[in-house]
Amino acid sequence: MKRGLSLLVLLSVSLLGATARPEASGAEALRQQRVNELLPRAMAEHGIDLWLVFTRENASDPIAEDVGGGRVVARSAFLFAHTADGYRKIAVVASYDVAPIEESGIYDEIIVYRGEGIKPHLQRLFRELNPQRIGVNISRDIPLADGLTVGMRNYLEETLGPTYAERFVSAEKLIVSFRGRRLPEEVAILREAAGYTDHILREALSEKVITPGRTTENDVADYLRRRTAEFGATVPFISVVVGPVRGHGGPSDRVIQPGDLVRIDFGITHRGYSTDIQRTAYVLRPGESEPPAELQRMWEVCRRATDAAIAAMRPGVTGNSIDTVARNILLEAGYEGYPHAAGHPIGFDVHDVGPLLGPDWPERYGSTVHLKLEEGQTFAVEPILYADYAPVGGEINIGLEEDVVITAEGAERLHPRQDELILIRSSQ
Amino acid sequence: MKRGLSLLVLLSVSLLGATARPEASGAEALRQQRVNELLPRAMAEHGIDLWLVFTRENASDPIAEDVGGGRVVARSAFLFAHTADGYRKIAVVASYDVAPIEESGIYDEIIVYRGEGIKPHLQRLFRELNPQRIGVNISRDIPLADGLTVGMRNYLEETLGPTYAERFVSAEKLIVSFRGRRLPEEVAILREAAGYTDHILREALSEKVITPGRTTENDVADYLRRRTAEFGATVPFISVVVGPVRGHGGPSDRVIQPGDLVRIDFGITHRGYSTDIQRTAYVLRPGESEPPAELQRMWEVCRRATDAAIAAMRPGVTGNSIDTVARNILLEAGYEGYPHAAGHPIGFDVHDVGPLLGPDWPERYGSTVHLKLEEGQTFAVEPILYADYAPVGGEINIGLEEDVVITAEGAERLHPRQDELILIRSSQ
Repeated sequence: MKRGLSLLVLLSVSLLGATARPEASGAEALRQQRVNELLPRAMAEHGIDLWLVFTRENASDPIAEDVGGGRVVARSAFLFAHTADGYRKIAVVASYDVAPIEESGIYDEIIVYRGEGIKPHLQRLFRELNPQRIGVNISRDIPLADGLTVGMRNYLEETLGPTYAERFVSAEKLIVSFRGRRLPEEVAILREAAGYTDHILREALSEKVITPGRTTENDVADYLRRRTAEFGATVPFISVVVGPVRGHGGPSDRVIQPGDLVRIDFGITHRGYSTDIQRTAYVLRPGESEPPAELQRMWEVCRRATDAAIAAMRPGVTGNSIDTVARNILLEAGYEGYPHAAGHPIGFDVHDVGPLLGPDWPERYGSTVHLKLEEGQTFAVEPILYADYAPVGGEINIGLEEDVVITAEGAERLHPRQDELILIRSSQ
Repeated sequence: MKRGLSLLVLLSVSLLGATARPEASGAEALRQQRVNELLPRAMAEHGIDLWLVFTRENASDPIAEDVGGGRVVARSAFLFAHTADGYRKIAVVASYDVAPIEESGIYDEIIVYRGEGIKPHLQRLFRELNPQRIGVNISRDIPLADGLTVGMRNYLEETLGPTYAERFVSAEKLIVSFRGRRLPEEVAILREAAGYTDHILREALSEKVITPGRTTENDVADYLRRRTAEFGATVPFISVVVGPVRGHGGPSDRVIQPGDLVRIDFGITHRGYSTDIQRTAYVLRPGESEPPAELQRMWEVCRRATDAAIAAMRPGVTGNSIDTVARNILLEAGYEGYPHAAGHPIGFDVHDVGPLLGPDWPERYGSTVHLKLEEGQTFAVEPILYADYAPVGGEINIGLEEDVVITAEGAERLHPRQDELILIRSSQ
């Protein structure tokens, strides 16, 4: 049809970017900055001269949102290329998908296709760019880096031919470096968020909120939610557990009693970034002024494991090596190892992409524990202590989880350290 | 000439409140019924003895939700097998993913894995089932049937070995038949939804809502939204266009004037099912009692094309053949062909999976126009007429779109036909 066949349209980003953006687009400005600074650096580090995100509606590539392409319908290609002319950012989208791509403010070139389809445009671009190592989103162990479907992979080969298909390499490590690193502006937001989180937790685990014999787990959770809302943030998850281990159990109507251990695992999402902190408190029995020696010892071992893990974190070490440091401290002190990782990346999600600070359990964690820490990554560190503790009638956790950012020298805490086991007095 | 307000449809809103089960579990019961009835039939028809949905968090397979697996985190396998012992439904999920799978009520067998990973369980199951044709979710042209990522495909081959990987076939047609067909209970819901939609449209395109010279496109859209909410439904999209073509333009503050053509493209989502209907009305000028002859002729041609398309629909014909029927009527009457398909499947989404009633434009529609219509599929039929029309200063559309279900004999309308071009009188 005559309506369906029009030529490609090139849009200059200078026109799009000229208008002052409203305040609400702070997140958009950060996304642009990430694509302009973090992405080309990660491409260079991993020797990829073209990164291709190829997606469409349904089964869409989860990383597409990071390059402004999360809402397209038809086949859409987002190309980032190191060329002789510098770093180029090119989008190829159907005419009805143009609006959100323009609005993203990310692309220098937006190529619009209609009835002729995306194929001739991709063919022309690849001939022109002639990339040598083409990063595509295929990953065994990192779902966020595995957004290319088999049908879309086949379509690429059908379009580009074997020559270019043979140059496909996994963009897994590129995605870890691009998505996993934070700009200084983002670290500042996370630091603010972690400060709120820590502050709210200190309030919640105090006599201000907890009256032993009366306050329930749900009361504490309600307090956390209310205070978070007052800070203008939201609560992606919340766990308040009194007594024996219940995993990520939701809070219940169980009343907090003297002699109880209260563990909170809690984070907030603030301006798009999420924290993840755990705190444990002991409720003193009448007459007690300090925790039982056995608990105090557990707490000190857990504190030591966490400190040692954080002290060992720096660019270039593997996630697995951090787990080993923390796990050995618990094992040497006579405790069992926690049945999970000693920590995980945080950022856009509570569990974000990057090195897992975990044991080498291939069927569970795959290769993610062998990734190396990089400057600008942010982590929650949680070598939780598991132990049987007769007074509560079962296994307990000393839950200690703290958030850090990796700097050139090591790891820097994003909020004040929990120095001592928190004690809550019974009022009487 | 009959106005739009003619109440041919008797709507009993009380029916909404009379359903025995709460909304949520009703949808769940239908999902179970779909998996128990439509799925094994589709598998048999397409010669697939094992259908495997293999998904995980992020980049998750979009069809997983249809088998209760839309919320899993770790690698999860959903197997549907025709065996000597009958039809088996087996889920293999990580321990922390069990809850939603149990709650789905779909599976006979739920295999839970922990540290050993999913691999040994899949190996054992495949040895036991020894399937000959294994449907996996790979599709060039149907995104909803293309949920298997390359990383997950590779993991399957790593797990099962080449013997089984060689037995992989595309489950594309199976998914079209399973997802695209409606149970009688679902057709009843869609019929109810289409009845509401048609009724609201007739009200909106009448003097009750439109006062020429005063009412704007936005006023009409507001009315549609308000009335839909009163029926307990929601509005997934809305388009109210006065004057020249603006595509799927959102409604504006343009005031409707005598001599205008008002076109509404509108659907509602009712109990999880979505309709898609278009209506066009002409606003009589003072003194006019019927539309201009040129408009009336356009309307009649468009009505004829739509009727002919619906009359040609029956199981076994291709989507493309329906487009040809409608398109030829417009062309033979001297109009250009619409620059899109003559219709599309409706159901869970406004654009659902199934045969596209479209032209053979391979780069745009791929193979979807060559799929054959099946009993129980539901469609929106819309061979819209495009024409230059001097009185409004540009190209106009006669937008006529009607919803049907395919039966054994042909196509059955889900709501009353629009018999005449709707006329709106100016008050004076």
